[in-house]
Amino acid sequence: MMVEKNISQAVIRRLPRYYRYLGQLLEEDVEVERISSHELSQMMKVTASQIRQDLNNFGGFGQQGYGYNVKFLYTEIGKILGLEQNHNVIIIGSGHLGQALANYKSFGKRGFTFTAMFDKDPKVVGTKVGDITIKAMDDLGAFLKENQVDIATLAIPKDAAEEVADLLVENGVKAIWNFAHLDLEVPRDVIVENVHLSESLMRLSYDLNQNKGEYKKDAYKSR
Amino acid sequence: MMVEKNISQAVIRRLPRYYRYLGQLLEEDVEVERISSHELSQMMKVTASQIRQDLNNFGGFGQQGYGYNVKFLYTEIGKILGLEQNHNVIIIGSGHLGQALANYKSFGKRGFTFTAMFDKDPKVVGTKVGDITIKAMDDLGAFLKENQVDIATLAIPKDAAEEVADLLVENGVKAIWNFAHLDLEVPRDVIVENVHLSESLMRLSYDLNQNKGEYKKDAYKSR
Repeated sequence: MMVEKNISQAVIRRLPRYYRYLGQLLEEDVEVERISSHELSQMMKVTASQIRQDLNNFGGFGQQGYGYNVKFLYTEIGKILGLEQNHNVIIIGSGHLGQALANYKSFGKRGFTFTAMFDKDPKVVGTKVGDITIKAMDDLGAFLKENQVDIATLAIPKDAAEEVADLLVENGVKAIWNFAHLDLEVPRDVIVENVHLSESLMRLSYDLNQNKGEYKKDAYKSR
Repeated sequence: MMVEKNISQAVIRRLPRYYRYLGQLLEEDVEVERISSHELSQMMKVTASQIRQDLNNFGGFGQQGYGYNVKFLYTEIGKILGLEQNHNVIIIGSGHLGQALANYKSFGKRGFTFTAMFDKDPKVVGTKVGDITIKAMDDLGAFLKENQVDIATLAIPKDAAEEVADLLVENGVKAIWNFAHLDLEVPRDVIVENVHLSESLMRLSYDLNQNKGEYKKDAYKSR
């Protein structure tokens, strides 16, 4: 069965959530065969029609009276998300955030392998985070020349981020997971996925403000 | 000048970014008076027409030939985002992620005050993170009864998150900043802002996959 590659950005942004719920179903019962859009809808708290529309992108699953084949759908979504292949990930910055990311067990399960960590502070260079020995920032360029790096994580303050990003790009890194609170300037063939925590906190503050006094219909909605 | 309160969710989600760029302008030059939609458009890499549409929500700013009053717009957006008032924030979980969040200097500047941190590990209870002494999870309920908590941050694994969220909700917390990788079940008047890092990494992986081979027009776009 061919999977359509022309999937809208809105659907793509929802795929990781489908992947998570399908994965949970398989974790709870490895023998689970199928799920109806109605059941999935109740679990995920989105409408069944939204689910049918989204999953229609993956071709002939949701047959009336059958529902979706859980394992097949999970595998296909995983393929679309690129999770069936290994990605080598490095982390720049060995502060608390960098260490938190290095320690996430679930990343490894999904094919993201942390291969190196860099810091400019000589006091931490040579110390270990899990199995990884922290390297000096000065060695980043050489490391990039000698090793395949698929994703570079920026867990450093924004003042230093642009310069490091330039070095990454010069050495062929095509994907940056950016936690620094700025919009990096990179060539168009380099992907930047931003995690701007303070913007997330501001949205929460906005919603909290709106909620004071008025009932908010979709406050619980996941986003 | 009255500010319209009926602003679309899409605009709201973009406000923190406007707020950041306007704040940067003021940081660089506290005397800066105005900026044209064209200049702002070049800085933010969105179209000038998008900016005009978004900022029209804030009433009579963008006069032709004048542009926007930077300080006024910054202040108004701050008000809408609820940043002119103080929010007491607690953090559940004193691991690397919790500590990273506790140490973010910029949160304090925007009116988010970290007032307490909790952990279930007796070995860390009583130790300090910055100025804050880590309290025992068993004391969370009593703390919530005695102190105003506006936002509770969940920086704990997903297995423990639902139970803690229930306790928060029972004790009147109306906003949860959730880093645990699950969708919390909370009453409709409780706001949950999710930061699902592994879903962010999956979107990056998806884009990286798509990029192999084909030129991707909007790869650099901030999101």
